[in-house]
Amino acid sequence: MQLVKELLEGNRRALARLISLVENGDPQKYDLLQELYPHTGNSYVIGITGAPGAGKSSLVDRLLKEMRRDGYSVGVIAVDPTSPFTGGAILGDRIRMQDHALDPGVFIRSMGTRGSLGGLSRATQEAIQVLDAFGQDFILVETVGVGQSEVDIVKTADSTVVVLTPAGGDSVQTMKAGIMEIADIFVINKADLPGAERTAAEVGVMLDMKEQYDWRPPVVSTVTLREEGIDKLWRSLQEHRSYLETSGKLHQLRKERVRRELTEQVEHLVKSRVWQQIRSRIPLEDLIEEIVQRRRDPYSAARDLLANIVFPHNDS
Amino acid sequence: MQLVKELLEGNRRALARLISLVENGDPQKYDLLQELYPHTGNSYVIGITGAPGAGKSSLVDRLLKEMRRDGYSVGVIAVDPTSPFTGGAILGDRIRMQDHALDPGVFIRSMGTRGSLGGLSRATQEAIQVLDAFGQDFILVETVGVGQSEVDIVKTADSTVVVLTPAGGDSVQTMKAGIMEIADIFVINKADLPGAERTAAEVGVMLDMKEQYDWRPPVVSTVTLREEGIDKLWRSLQEHRSYLETSGKLHQLRKERVRRELTEQVEHLVKSRVWQQIRSRIPLEDLIEEIVQRRRDPYSAARDLLANIVFPHNDS
Repeated sequence: MQLVKELLEGNRRALARLISLVENGDPQKYDLLQELYPHTGNSYVIGITGAPGAGKSSLVDRLLKEMRRDGYSVGVIAVDPTSPFTGGAILGDRIRMQDHALDPGVFIRSMGTRGSLGGLSRATQEAIQVLDAFGQDFILVETVGVGQSEVDIVKTADSTVVVLTPAGGDSVQTMKAGIMEIADIFVINKADLPGAERTAAEVGVMLDMKEQYDWRPPVVSTVTLREEGIDKLWRSLQEHRSYLETSGKLHQLRKERVRRELTEQVEHLVKSRVWQQIRSRIPLEDLIEEIVQRRRDPYSAARDLLANIVFPHNDS
Repeated sequence: MQLVKELLEGNRRALARLISLVENGDPQKYDLLQELYPHTGNSYVIGITGAPGAGKSSLVDRLLKEMRRDGYSVGVIAVDPTSPFTGGAILGDRIRMQDHALDPGVFIRSMGTRGSLGGLSRATQEAIQVLDAFGQDFILVETVGVGQSEVDIVKTADSTVVVLTPAGGDSVQTMKAGIMEIADIFVINKADLPGAERTAAEVGVMLDMKEQYDWRPPVVSTVTLREEGIDKLWRSLQEHRSYLETSGKLHQLRKERVRRELTEQVEHLVKSRVWQQIRSRIPLEDLIEEIVQRRRDPYSAARDLLANIVFPHNDS
């Protein structure tokens, strides 16, 4: 396909259009992803999550500059599950994009949810695939912490950074257990505010509760405005990457990711084919009416619907 | 099954145990639900949603008393997507349960999420089925408003009440569009606080933006501590029910619910059977490794996995 060819040649407009196609659920989506697939697997994905107001955007911006200084190309996906906006329409992102508009090594994209969180999580994973095929060395995925969603989204990351602030609201006690478990690195951002040391100490106490670590998450204090601590964060990320690579954990992570992708693909295909076959044979409206009337039940009806469904080899 | 027989005889312990079985994903779950199904379809389900602190629990409690006064039996499911607790372990619910412990016409159950929001939404629907078969006239489903989850959960309700307060935080402007669309009745709770009239007026203005209504959501002001407005809420609910019944909308709602249930059942069965067949034939680990190595892609691999899968009639 022409767009894929252009993407692989480094065309940024093709990159933007492909992400949009994927995000909008274009019918050709899976053909595109299939064509891109052999060119993926080279990006290192970093998830950055934390409560609203924790300063994630600025942190990402500073980290990005650090990576650029070392000559790496970087893609940024800013995910906001509470926003209906996609495609860089958020004001803050527009400002960020301006900052890097002339830098060919940076590509920033924001994504909101127009439907389910599940859909957003999938769209994020697919955008990562496109950026990966485009050749970005690092992909930063920034998500607002609002519960299950960021846990799902971060499953895609190789390294996950959880951003805290000294502000009372997201003190360690109130943090959700799920978030703690996904952290490979903790950042105490706005570390010039009162209470920063206590917050860092609290994280330390919590980390002490587990006795043995293959990788003990470091706690990095940052002040983004003064660019303090960003170099340390960048070093910690590189150390975590080395750890994953030498321990074989990175390969494991990527296997898990492929397993999830394969599972989703199989189930996506199965569902669409099953419904196609069922709809072509059975008047579903009548069946639903019978179930509403309690003359049938949905459980045995589902079993009957599946009788004699076949998946011949070439029915795709 | 013995438990089902006991439930249908009105045994509350059987009711509690069946909800637990369903909630914990017992292997017999669907057999149980199938057996219960002919006895369902008689309860009227009311969803009550709103921000944390809006006073939903007290409101539900007062409404419940109103319903009891009119001789109806009531089941309450208190859903908190942010809580890991299930089975009435939340303190507030324990207190509530005590209040009604001696009333055989009331059954209260709380549910938290131990995994995905999707799972919670399903468990809620299934608990409703059990309470319905038990014979409760009304089922009140109380959910904390935290985004997509309450929209999903409330899909199960016949009438949906959105609870607002005069407090600035959940002023009408900041409400999520999705929540507004699901409201059949608005409650301005804590209506003795300053700003209550303005909040009610704001909802009115917003409702005026749509020109035509088959059912225009009424705005009911309540003060739960003084039991003010609860009778009006109860009347509005009965009016909404009459409207749904006479307009044929209730039947439509229930058809949609059956359609969703049938869809979920079919997809649940399909997935488990497909994976059973795939696993029995193909060494998945090798395939995953090949995909990680980029010697294959997950999209064509998924199509190949599905080649020659069959659903014979009696393989359940």
